Amino acid sequence: MPAIRHRVEISAPIEKVYDAVATPQGISEWWSRDGVRGESKEGSRLEFFFGEPEPAAVMEITRLSPDRDVSWSCVGGADEWIGTTLTFDLTQADEKTVVMFTHADWNSPSEFMAHCSARWAYFLLSLKSLLETGMGTPFPEDLKF
Amino acid sequence: MPAIRHRVEISAPIEKVYDAVATPQGISEWWSRDGVRGESKEGSRLEFFFGEPEPAAVMEITRLSPDRDVSWSCVGGADEWIGTTLTFDLTQADEKTVVMFTHADWNSPSEFMAHCSARWAYFLLSLKSLLETGMGTPFPEDLKF
Repeated sequence: MPAIRHRVEISAPIEKVYDAVATPQGISEWWSRDGVRGESKEGSRLEFFFGEPEPAAVMEITRLSPDRDVSWSCVGGADEWIGTTLTFDLTQADEKTVVMFTHADWNSPSEFMAHCSARWAYFLLSLKSLLETGMGTPFPEDLKF
Repeated sequence: MPAIRHRVEISAPIEKVYDAVATPQGISEWWSRDGVRGESKEGSRLEFFFGEPEPAAVMEITRLSPDRDVSWSCVGGADEWIGTTLTFDLTQADEKTVVMFTHADWNSPSEFMAHCSARWAYFLLSLKSLLETGMGTPFPEDLKF
């Protein structure tokens, strides 16, 4: 099945990158400042808000392996997202942390998937900026495209 | 075979977006200011330079359809790029031009492909910025990651 895969290097310790992708507080600083609700533990659900009363996405946390990887399974939101899986895989390389991001198990390589691919790259660069400069570009401060 | 697909909307007329992806002068303003050599016509080859005496990529232009699409076949450069195909597919939607970018026919979904996926999204946003603000972020002014 088609997948979005992005690799980004971040000049920050792996523990800080992990916290930014594993905790609602961290995620809100690079993906949506509008709110991430839920508890950071395996089996728990996270709700992601983007300016609407209903969450734009609901993810079940399927894996939280400290300083290694975080996985979600999408259980609510856009039809095309439901059933997809997302993974942030972290490795330390010299002074950097390498993030391998995968959003897999799409039904088809649709135009919406291509939109999400560019959007994910943008938000991963927001994550990089947050960790390297202290300032991300989460929704609603994000560039619209 | 695996493919990178990104969709980006640009607030600019389709003719200007076409010129920016179809001509060496245009491409040098958003991908590599270091130099794009070759003639813009079907069957011709374009060489893309990124700070080295040898081109980092050589593309054969397989299609130039004014204000519609541009396709390249990679014939030189990184091993993983050779044999891949790239397409910029343009459509007008209201006041915007939608760019559907595809870099297809990779042998495998490698870490290098994931790197290139994030890099392409970055450079497509450079294309957007060029057309909307007059200023792109081509190599060597690009963010390194």
